Amino acid sequence: MAIQFPQHLKPLEPQASVLLEQERNKASFDSKTLMQRIYGQEYLEKRDRILNILQFDPVLGDKSHRYYEGRESRFKKSLAAAKRLAELQRIHHWTDEEFGMAEYLFDEPSPFRLHRSMFMPTLLNQGTEEQKKLYLEPAQRYEIIGCYAQTELGHGSNVRGLETTATYHSETETFELNSPTLTASKWWIGGLGAAANHAIVMARLISNRKDYGPHPFIVQIRNLQDHTPLEGITVGDIGPKFGFNTVDNGFILFDHVHVPHIAMLARYSSIDKKTGEYRTPPNSKLAYGTMVFVRANIVLESCQVLARAATVATRYSAIRIQGSDANQPKKIKAFDGTIKTVETPVLDYTMQQYRLFPIIAQAYACHFTGQEMHRMYHENQEKMAQGDFSYLADLHASSSGLKSLTTTLAVAAIEDCRRACGGHGYSLFSGLGQFYQDYLPKATWEGDNYLLTQQTARYLLKTMRSIRAGKTDATNFSSEYIAEYVAHPEAKCGFTTVSDLHHPELLLSAFKFRAASLIDKTVHAMDQEQTSWNDMLVDMYRISRAHCQLFMAHNFIKAVFDDPNPVLKDVAVLYCLSTLEQEAADFLMCGYLSPEQALMIKQYMVVMLKKIRPNAVALVDAFGFPDYLLNSALGESEGHVYERLTQMAEKEPLNAHRVAEGYHQFIRPLIYAGKQNWKIDPKGIARL
Amino acid sequence: MAIQFPQHLKPLEPQASVLLEQERNKASFDSKTLMQRIYGQEYLEKRDRILNILQFDPVLGDKSHRYYEGRESRFKKSLAAAKRLAELQRIHHWTDEEFGMAEYLFDEPSPFRLHRSMFMPTLLNQGTEEQKKLYLEPAQRYEIIGCYAQTELGHGSNVRGLETTATYHSETETFELNSPTLTASKWWIGGLGAAANHAIVMARLISNRKDYGPHPFIVQIRNLQDHTPLEGITVGDIGPKFGFNTVDNGFILFDHVHVPHIAMLARYSSIDKKTGEYRTPPNSKLAYGTMVFVRANIVLESCQVLARAATVATRYSAIRIQGSDANQPKKIKAFDGTIKTVETPVLDYTMQQYRLFPIIAQAYACHFTGQEMHRMYHENQEKMAQGDFSYLADLHASSSGLKSLTTTLAVAAIEDCRRACGGHGYSLFSGLGQFYQDYLPKATWEGDNYLLTQQTARYLLKTMRSIRAGKTDATNFSSEYIAEYVAHPEAKCGFTTVSDLHHPELLLSAFKFRAASLIDKTVHAMDQEQTSWNDMLVDMYRISRAHCQLFMAHNFIKAVFDDPNPVLKDVAVLYCLSTLEQEAADFLMCGYLSPEQALMIKQYMVVMLKKIRPNAVALVDAFGFPDYLLNSALGESEGHVYERLTQMAEKEPLNAHRVAEGYHQFIRPLIYAGKQNWKIDPKGIARL
Repeated sequence: MAIQFPQHLKPLEPQASVLLEQERNKASFDSKTLMQRIYGQEYLEKRDRILNILQFDPVLGDKSHRYYEGRESRFKKSLAAAKRLAELQRIHHWTDEEFGMAEYLFDEPSPFRLHRSMFMPTLLNQGTEEQKKLYLEPAQRYEIIGCYAQTELGHGSNVRGLETTATYHSETETFELNSPTLTASKWWIGGLGAAANHAIVMARLISNRKDYGPHPFIVQIRNLQDHTPLEGITVGDIGPKFGFNTVDNGFILFDHVHVPHIAMLARYSSIDKKTGEYRTPPNSKLAYGTMVFVRANIVLESCQVLARAATVATRYSAIRIQGSDANQPKKIKAFDGTIKTVETPVLDYTMQQYRLFPIIAQAYACHFTGQEMHRMYHENQEKMAQGDFSYLADLHASSSGLKSLTTTLAVAAIEDCRRACGGHGYSLFSGLGQFYQDYLPKATWEGDNYLLTQQTARYLLKTMRSIRAGKTDATNFSSEYIAEYVAHPEAKCGFTTVSDLHHPELLLSAFKFRAASLIDKTVHAMDQEQTSWNDMLVDMYRISRAHCQLFMAHNFIKAVFDDPNPVLKDVAVLYCLSTLEQEAADFLMCGYLSPEQALMIKQYMVVMLKKIRPNAVALVDAFGFPDYLLNSALGESEGHVYERLTQMAEKEPLNAHRVAEGYHQFIRPLIYAGKQNWKIDPKGIARL
Repeated sequence: MAIQFPQHLKPLEPQASVLLEQERNKASFDSKTLMQRIYGQEYLEKRDRILNILQFDPVLGDKSHRYYEGRESRFKKSLAAAKRLAELQRIHHWTDEEFGMAEYLFDEPSPFRLHRSMFMPTLLNQGTEEQKKLYLEPAQRYEIIGCYAQTELGHGSNVRGLETTATYHSETETFELNSPTLTASKWWIGGLGAAANHAIVMARLISNRKDYGPHPFIVQIRNLQDHTPLEGITVGDIGPKFGFNTVDNGFILFDHVHVPHIAMLARYSSIDKKTGEYRTPPNSKLAYGTMVFVRANIVLESCQVLARAATVATRYSAIRIQGSDANQPKKIKAFDGTIKTVETPVLDYTMQQYRLFPIIAQAYACHFTGQEMHRMYHENQEKMAQGDFSYLADLHASSSGLKSLTTTLAVAAIEDCRRACGGHGYSLFSGLGQFYQDYLPKATWEGDNYLLTQQTARYLLKTMRSIRAGKTDATNFSSEYIAEYVAHPEAKCGFTTVSDLHHPELLLSAFKFRAASLIDKTVHAMDQEQTSWNDMLVDMYRISRAHCQLFMAHNFIKAVFDDPNPVLKDVAVLYCLSTLEQEAADFLMCGYLSPEQALMIKQYMVVMLKKIRPNAVALVDAFGFPDYLLNSALGESEGHVYERLTQMAEKEPLNAHRVAEGYHQFIRPLIYAGKQNWKIDPKGIARL
């Protein structure tokens, strides 16, 4: 008999639904209108159509197992879900965008994830027409299921260190794939552990004894009849991870495996079938354009992550009561119309606001920055089509640093929001624990967040040098603010009262000066003092961070300062203030801000937190997360926190019986090991 | 047939063991000597004796299941381990200290944890002699197994908000325990979900219609014959958590349950059996003394957490190679004596040193601070025994803030070290993932890390006010530095060159000035500008943090600056520099440091990182973590990273068969759903 909570008990008054309704009533704007502005009506309609399909689907509708089950059963359910999503795509003729929405709403990493996100795109971009026909078309129909095998056990980000070889033999017209050492084992490859039957393998191309470095090869790895590994191949799962355990990240080793000449993806570089001669790829900058697109999406995704974490924590903080603020005791109107004094919702405490509202602001900053990056991407694509590559370097540099900054912010936000939920944040039912675990790798992959910033910094150092040398005009975002700094390196921030801090140009000027000054100091250290690149790595990281924080502030302000909704202006100012406060050391060290000004920023931040307080719940409501996505007892839209926590606890497998498994084997023998000094009555009660 | 790695493959040269040996050879001191200084010979001998018992124990010796299994089977194994540890205690006559060592080495939260750490101590401290005889003695023999039920579903840190009632009825001489609402359910109670048969329940004492607030009651909750819940009691497990899943955190609700008069723990307050009259407790400050002891141990435990995370990440960073530093290519001597150029271990990159070495320094700072707290605790106990309570308030205030600061540092360190391990840090085999998950609650329980700081700040504000009013002499640590500030509020830090930064008094003066200045500004804001307590919460947090960072710097410097081992001086200086750098904004805003000086601190930090680099591995070796404890493929002492990762992957349940479960049900139907355009040969290979 499973354990059940008494049905007649209700949570203490005031009920959460009353508290949330009050929060929504006191907002100064309509969250639905803002939601439509964020997503657009078309997107929301599409999403709701797909949400309806998923919520009522027999395989995908129920997420309730997620928090209880171990890896094996979760992986099996994840395979079932992957199959079902593929079927639904066929049935409903979903476009790639719609399939992406379904994956987003289902919100669980899938074993087929890399098949769609890396295997097929690589075939599309790097395969010849013949290769696309042979591999891409069946892949689209899931007749072959692929993965993308690049990193190795001993080699992560540095692709040049890869050990796996593909040696061309013109006599057999085959490439011989081989793993010379244990560290050459491909490792971390999503979908490889159990699901995939094909892989794109990055291997050092060797032909006529010459090593041409890593190139992509498409390789069948498992038998299509029974899924057993093909001869010479050792393949399996790399084992449990901190998160992402619904995906079979795998390893693979090749013991002199021969694949046909067509296996090498040959759109750019290729090997002559007869002679083994290598044909060099035409130098193409087009790939960098695509990377900007990918990274714009990462920034938009970071927005969703920040907003989702903030939604859970903000709603729950409006419901969770603790102690009371003697100066402002909380009063509410009960159902019977009387006014009652109750404990204070934690959202009323400045510390809680200080922990949560900057995260809401970061979410909005990422939204407007992601949108701007999409616009710039399209503009740049048009320019490049006309042979004009002048935007590319700047855009690419910013996009590298932004990937690093926004995913770092997002990772931190999930954990900060989880902790801001107090004890219950530690329950998986909060929805933030697994979310954090699954999101974490974003900070490492598609460019490690530390390494990436070197690319951004390198570009900015170069820009500074060429402006100093008079070789560059200030023609784009970066060169403009760097040139301004070079012209006025002794400038000071001009404000004298806190009310000046609502002026966007003034806030931006601080971000600009600080970024340019960091760049300048680094150029000086390297060029004048011969400091090595290695000794400047920490500064590189800071430069990239400063540049991207400026970029985000710039885009946010540009997007909302002519806006009819004054709330977004407040949020933009809070974004700037909280970033200024967090990074105050930089602003003070570059001499642009005085200690007195920094103090005013702190004070004004408390003012802004209070100003935003009545709109906090509406600001997260505007992101419109469906409860199906949140899967959170603390964050659901109607706020039935305590009912949901108890309902979810009832499903805990340990509660399936009134006496937990293990009692007879491990507890009873201990209790009865000696000679008890007390008596037990027939009801099992100790008689003293 | 389980999947196996090819036996003939070895990792790429240089082997990890060679790299680690080189690291150890280049250290300037003997890590074993330092280890003995940290722990003392007696402790190490005891620990090794217990380690030997555990490592070869049939139940406790093998930890290999931990990373693969789901909650149900891990909980069952955890019960088995708890029983085994209780048996070993009997067999080997372990003292409490030795039992603690065994739990530490076994390193898995146990269902009997609260039985030992809260149930028995509460009986000991708050029970009468009669109650101790009745309950504590059988508890020591595990004849009754208890837990400590305080927090409720709707009420965490604010004990005054608890809803559970215990109403005394003199006619039946019983207390009636009742849960009036759903939010009154006890929640998060360790050991309650499945294991305990008794609980200490904190409930509002009501007698003769008067509410005396929360008091402790000992209550039998499960039948001693068959472990079923007693009448009127609903009890079970609260469900899965982010970590700590080997413990059965539980809930309990009482439906008018009567317990005898003796159930109320009556050493301090009690109810007259006949009249129901309440006897007030004598006001005792002694409990605060104990809290200092508990918190000294938390600081020492934080040291172990920091050191353990740093051990894994530092050793692995000496082994993990990536790219190369063109200025300083890494050369090693191979087995055959030749010199080879190899990729650079990531530990050579400043960024990696910047991420890891401050954590090593924090570990040492916590060690020396914890030791000093123990000394102060004993000194204070002696004073209190003589009726002198003058040390208590200062010690208690520091200890509150230190619990907050050191557990916050420790939580961050595990995650920072995990990320510093790159991709493999995300594998559970790193040993850092579960470690983080299980350690996390320390930041919330035994005083939430944000709330606690208010206690520290409150004391410091009071001290500042009374010094300003001339009411207090500078007689203890806090009042001394505050008085110094009050005497010289316009002081500036005097250094002009980076070499001055090795002077401990100079470094400490900055920490002192900054803490006192923060306190002063807050007193000013509250007393002169009438800013509310709520609006100053962020400042309270900063004050506590600043005070405790100073306290740690002070203790670290005091402990090592007369030391024959110069390495610890370097580490102490790094602790100061990295904290100064991290908190630079405070030091600049209070006007004690100039921007130029802050820049010198940054520069000198890079110098110190380089100076510590050769000793990094030896500094973590000195903490002497047994491999049995670390349970980490990345951090084990001999450094066989890649062999261990592959051995551990072989045990992944998904690899038990060459074709993973789920293929026939979920993959094959998808592949063969349509009409394939390609042929499959008898070997299962697609023929193009």
